Amino acid sequence: MHVVITGGAGFLGSRLARELLKRRALTGSDGVAREITKVTLVDVVRARGFDDPRVELLAGDVADPEVVADAITEETGSIFHLAAVVSGQAEAEFDLGLRINLDATRLILERARRNGNRPRIVFTSSVAVFGGPLPERVLDTSILAPQSSYGTQKAMAELLINDYSRKGFVDGRALRMPTISVRPGAPNKAASSFASGIVREPLEGKEAVCPVSPDTVMWLMSPRKAIQALLHGHELDGAAFGHSRALSMPGLSITVRDMVAALERVAGKEVVARIRWEPDPALARIVASWPGDFVTARADALGFERDASFEEIVRAYIDDDLPRAR
Amino acid sequence: MHVVITGGAGFLGSRLARELLKRRALTGSDGVAREITKVTLVDVVRARGFDDPRVELLAGDVADPEVVADAITEETGSIFHLAAVVSGQAEAEFDLGLRINLDATRLILERARRNGNRPRIVFTSSVAVFGGPLPERVLDTSILAPQSSYGTQKAMAELLINDYSRKGFVDGRALRMPTISVRPGAPNKAASSFASGIVREPLEGKEAVCPVSPDTVMWLMSPRKAIQALLHGHELDGAAFGHSRALSMPGLSITVRDMVAALERVAGKEVVARIRWEPDPALARIVASWPGDFVTARADALGFERDASFEEIVRAYIDDDLPRAR
Repeated sequence: MHVVITGGAGFLGSRLARELLKRRALTGSDGVAREITKVTLVDVVRARGFDDPRVELLAGDVADPEVVADAITEETGSIFHLAAVVSGQAEAEFDLGLRINLDATRLILERARRNGNRPRIVFTSSVAVFGGPLPERVLDTSILAPQSSYGTQKAMAELLINDYSRKGFVDGRALRMPTISVRPGAPNKAASSFASGIVREPLEGKEAVCPVSPDTVMWLMSPRKAIQALLHGHELDGAAFGHSRALSMPGLSITVRDMVAALERVAGKEVVARIRWEPDPALARIVASWPGDFVTARADALGFERDASFEEIVRAYIDDDLPRAR
Repeated sequence: MHVVITGGAGFLGSRLARELLKRRALTGSDGVAREITKVTLVDVVRARGFDDPRVELLAGDVADPEVVADAITEETGSIFHLAAVVSGQAEAEFDLGLRINLDATRLILERARRNGNRPRIVFTSSVAVFGGPLPERVLDTSILAPQSSYGTQKAMAELLINDYSRKGFVDGRALRMPTISVRPGAPNKAASSFASGIVREPLEGKEAVCPVSPDTVMWLMSPRKAIQALLHGHELDGAAFGHSRALSMPGLSITVRDMVAALERVAGKEVVARIRWEPDPALARIVASWPGDFVTARADALGFERDASFEEIVRAYIDDDLPRAR
């Protein structure tokens, strides 16, 4: 079976690829487990660090029909569509956001439909599809009222995936991911970058700036649980999703203060002393507009799992990523 | 001021055009009332029955960039975007539905954005954006989970209009219309066609078939209130919409039995005797999946009005349309 990962050079995409190569099998469109014979990683740059003969690296624009036609063929049983323009950039570069977050998704759906083999498609959506007046805990039945271009484009893509699936053209699943923490690597320009930085940088002996108040409530998921969710979301039978293929993933609702306290318990006082509290009102406003807590009854019933504690998340980061970072 | 109506040859579009020509003025993008100097009706066929020198008739495909560029210029202060592929056809012809219901909307938004004059855009959305497990009365905060391609495309268009408005590219308003009854003219292939037919045909001395049970609950709006809603939705200040430019319109929640009883009170026993009750289970299932009742708190607060009774709707049809039909 051929698997395609868009955004395959990114942190989640590469980690997912490594996990797939280890697992060796995935459920095919016929519901039967099949051996993974090829994993194609599509991204603007070639993914690094793969020497497995099953891996194909494809550098190209995922919104380019030729690139998509090269990547996705009648042999493609599974597509993990992770490529995206992130929140801050989609707001600053409106056309680019629409092109990658919406048009590329449509192109992939349409290619898969034309191929006629009804592949499983796992799409990473976002809690940014929610916004406006929300209950204290967002429900599975809460309205989609995104307040950003990123959230709008993700919500539109969800709707399209749902309809393509309802029509039987593809077998899609749109998983709304919480903020992933702790991400390895360098800080980026996402407003949520600090949620990884305040753990990652101090553990590497560097100073980190926390731009939000300690009272800020975050909705978090570890990289381990994120990969688990993508795989579990793929393996579930499509019919189990019921009336909608879009699903809010379980997360951990926690204040920034409690995140730092957990880091201190794991790594000590001198590590958390490297966090500089420097409020950035504009950024804090954006982060405060994100829902910090959800009731994810549908995902829970389908067997998706949340992280047990932020302490566990920090320990997992130390095990999985810190050695490489040092 | 130049006004564009897409779907201008249709029943609502033509009626709206006549109303605009009578009113003579609309609020411009600067919030100031301006004289209507030109009304362009765009549709696949040329609209009939207009001899006003202010009317321009444009026959063309609203998903064709050249047609859109011809219709919408820097002089265009208002756009009523009513052109659509209806529910049944969007389900049968998936690509056509996407092209007209989504792509044409995006084209119009993009044209308006490029023109740079931030026109007001009134878009007719639909209660078909709702679906799946819903409360007995749909709320302004209920989730968008369309169960049809038509509803999916309308929901995507709503999201896009909202984001283009939030970014300040256009000044959009997406009004979710109930089933319009009583529509004049011939029956069509919409599943809701009977909701007009069981009044219109008997009043013209013809037999009508009612394919659903008398217990079926409908969510209705008269043509008069629909035109009023489009104009009111245009005239409101954009900021009044708050976090979302999409809004469920007030309607009348009524059983088919009570619709027929109202017709009998207005027109007598021999008229309703022309209704033949001939259940069509497939069609009845579709109609039963539509929400029959809404709490439209946001629209009510903004001054949109509902019909007082179905009797009043029948009388209005007799006044406005029956003479022409006979």
